[in-house]
Amino acid sequence: MEIKREKWSKNFSEWLDWVLFGGEFYDYGRYPLKGVGIWLPYGFKLRKAVVDLIRKLLDETGHEEVLFPMLIPDSLLKKESEHIKGFEEEVYWITKGGSEELDVKLALRPTSETAITYMESLWIKSYKQLPKKYYQIVSVFRYETKATRPLIRLREVTTFKEAHTLHVDFDDAMRQVKEAIEIYKKFFDELGIPYVISQRPEWDKFPGAVVTYAFDTLMPDGRTLQIGTAHHLGQHFTKAFDYKIQKEDGTLDYPHQTSYGISERVIASLISIHGDDRGAVLVPSVAPIQVVVIPIPAKNQEDTNKVIDYAEKLRKKLEEGGVRVTVDKDMDKTPGEKFYIWEIKGVPIRAEVGLRELQNSSVTLKRRDTLEGKVVKLENVLEEVKKLMDEITQNLKKRAWENLNSRIRYAKSVEEANSLLEEGVIVEVPWCGEESCGLKIEEMTNAKVKGIPLDDRKVSDPCVVCKKPAKTVLRIAKTY
Amino acid sequence: MEIKREKWSKNFSEWLDWVLFGGEFYDYGRYPLKGVGIWLPYGFKLRKAVVDLIRKLLDETGHEEVLFPMLIPDSLLKKESEHIKGFEEEVYWITKGGSEELDVKLALRPTSETAITYMESLWIKSYKQLPKKYYQIVSVFRYETKATRPLIRLREVTTFKEAHTLHVDFDDAMRQVKEAIEIYKKFFDELGIPYVISQRPEWDKFPGAVVTYAFDTLMPDGRTLQIGTAHHLGQHFTKAFDYKIQKEDGTLDYPHQTSYGISERVIASLISIHGDDRGAVLVPSVAPIQVVVIPIPAKNQEDTNKVIDYAEKLRKKLEEGGVRVTVDKDMDKTPGEKFYIWEIKGVPIRAEVGLRELQNSSVTLKRRDTLEGKVVKLENVLEEVKKLMDEITQNLKKRAWENLNSRIRYAKSVEEANSLLEEGVIVEVPWCGEESCGLKIEEMTNAKVKGIPLDDRKVSDPCVVCKKPAKTVLRIAKTY
Repeated sequence: MEIKREKWSKNFSEWLDWVLFGGEFYDYGRYPLKGVGIWLPYGFKLRKAVVDLIRKLLDETGHEEVLFPMLIPDSLLKKESEHIKGFEEEVYWITKGGSEELDVKLALRPTSETAITYMESLWIKSYKQLPKKYYQIVSVFRYETKATRPLIRLREVTTFKEAHTLHVDFDDAMRQVKEAIEIYKKFFDELGIPYVISQRPEWDKFPGAVVTYAFDTLMPDGRTLQIGTAHHLGQHFTKAFDYKIQKEDGTLDYPHQTSYGISERVIASLISIHGDDRGAVLVPSVAPIQVVVIPIPAKNQEDTNKVIDYAEKLRKKLEEGGVRVTVDKDMDKTPGEKFYIWEIKGVPIRAEVGLRELQNSSVTLKRRDTLEGKVVKLENVLEEVKKLMDEITQNLKKRAWENLNSRIRYAKSVEEANSLLEEGVIVEVPWCGEESCGLKIEEMTNAKVKGIPLDDRKVSDPCVVCKKPAKTVLRIAKTY
Repeated sequence: MEIKREKWSKNFSEWLDWVLFGGEFYDYGRYPLKGVGIWLPYGFKLRKAVVDLIRKLLDETGHEEVLFPMLIPDSLLKKESEHIKGFEEEVYWITKGGSEELDVKLALRPTSETAITYMESLWIKSYKQLPKKYYQIVSVFRYETKATRPLIRLREVTTFKEAHTLHVDFDDAMRQVKEAIEIYKKFFDELGIPYVISQRPEWDKFPGAVVTYAFDTLMPDGRTLQIGTAHHLGQHFTKAFDYKIQKEDGTLDYPHQTSYGISERVIASLISIHGDDRGAVLVPSVAPIQVVVIPIPAKNQEDTNKVIDYAEKLRKKLEEGGVRVTVDKDMDKTPGEKFYIWEIKGVPIRAEVGLRELQNSSVTLKRRDTLEGKVVKLENVLEEVKKLMDEITQNLKKRAWENLNSRIRYAKSVEEANSLLEEGVIVEVPWCGEESCGLKIEEMTNAKVKGIPLDDRKVSDPCVVCKKPAKTVLRIAKTY
């Protein structure tokens, strides 16, 4: 068998729709409202595994989970001027309760900086309580006017993990931004999702941030997807709320803040990046089902029953070893039909058992990532499955990183950049550091500036626009 | 020491405000919007334990977790006429996105029957797919015009667990309602929350239901609180959506539905029912912290350091045994100040260790429920703590049930009922079964009819209103 990735890369948008619904992850486009979808049971389990992973990483680094109100009164949301300017065209407003007009219109939160700063100002008065790290996992809403896409550009983002931290000074907040970046690296590494980290340019920071760092990955169609951001907010919000704390030397000052977030885009990239023409390929650590057992019917019912008993024996053995396993006993479907479905769903390992396996006390294991098969003894099946899961994890991660690394290219001129961009890659060009040149690059390439690499790079070539000496490289890409 | 429950019962409303904020469960009344609150880190952990418990009970009975959109378009919500009549005065409406007026106004879901029925009609076409049981745990919104109360009457209910099921016929749906009741019994029993189950009268059913069963508990102030409901929806919604499925005999018919829900009122009752004048008393199985270790400072720093090391040793021992434990090492607070805080928070067991305990290799354990102390050997501390947690669980449950059972009383007349109601009890009166007499009872007692007992009871006394022979008893109570 051969892994094909033609449909996957050439018709990515259709591919994703097909996998999300066909694999029973997410129903999109059928609910009578644009830009929202439904997490189906199988997809919900994947989402839960991903959420549990980020929760674990945040809990073990001293973040405390909280839950803030969904509704933010008009006056509160408008407190910080850059922030509201950035969001005002995207906010849903509630103006009525029952048949009454509300006195104050209420926003569905687009993000929670204002609500959290307000409450922090009541709770935290002294440097002794700092640093303080909160997070919540909630729905946020954006009235998107651009074309919406399942899990990628939604009007209801149902899986927004937003962390908000408070610090005594600028440096401690910067230290926190770096901690956030390390946490996200671990998170994406565990999922085998490759990324580049860029400092966003001044004109594309989070509204209200001093500096924004972003994780971008590259989707099969060659467009980048922003999958995580971390912002140093400085004193923007605390000044807007006139919120001071007592410092160690007894003086009062505005504390510094950070915020950092991820969303279901992580799940979009998880499903997309590892996939192929047969569907998703899930990383074993978060796969709702790690092994699906398919009993192959025999010629007579008696033997078929024996095969089913054998499949159950296999299930028990794996389950006792901590493997998430299911037996597909649906008698209305042929094995081929079952293979088709479970491949879309991306179950990492398929275990086929028929009369031959029963007679030999063996199991035929098929890897979803390479489509390779292997016959193993029943007595060794647990260790073989665990070994295979490790290999699949390593292979997916390696393949994804190699793909990304081969698609980051350097260009010395705008023309060269433009021709590379057509190949669906991230292009790095030398840049003088001036905003005007950066904006010019966006204009001349019809791509988006993603920013400068976190590991700031020196180049000897001149800026692609003004030809003055370049200070660094600027990343550009076609983007979601 | 003595357990006092004076403030707890006499000033319950103030007591609850004090415990929720003082115990760092929930911040209510400080956010600049009425009827919403913030789950603080400690409260969030309690909420998570309660949510995990109901999730476990639903998962193991074949319910599948999903996540539906928060927003329901006007036309979809209005599809079933009784349903919208029941909710229309309570719905928040979004009318604007950014600065644009929306073409279709969007409701913040008050509950999800309409959204779910619509999608079921696309997904489920045959009896072979039935029964189907979905659930989700989400925020729902009600524009409450009555006085709001923390966790009890909110405008944003953040912990709404709603289950929705689909069935081939009436009887199978009724079987499901009974399963739901059994699941909720297990759930409340695990939490030690006592309840009565009543079939709600016709005039107080869920809007769109054929029959509604409800779990009520009795709060410290003598008012009942509805903590769970289960509805047989019949074909009300499927008919409104003209949604038919194929039955086994090949004919088409409208499927039957049920829905059942709980909310953070469970947490309100969990905190309230077991409490006393010192604060909450948490049931060990869901307590975020089961044992708090308080090191008692010695006269000199050297000895104090030894005590702290000893406290850490104790922590490790308990932690390795699977106990959720913390050491309060805050040196700015006296032991007495710490006792006060941890008592409000309701930590089931306090472990005090000072120089004496260190010298004797012992630990002084104090039960939060009875305030009794006990000195145990360090080597036995794990089994002693586990035994104590069992005893606390049993004691809380027993005390709560005895209290409820002693406060369900029978009255033969409206006068008698009225005088009993003043004592803060649930009163059962003989009733002929006519709606007019039921409504008259509400009028004459200034209490609410809660319905008839699930275990329908025969009585020989006549109806308290019309004096005709009674068919059953009717429960009435002052209520939230």
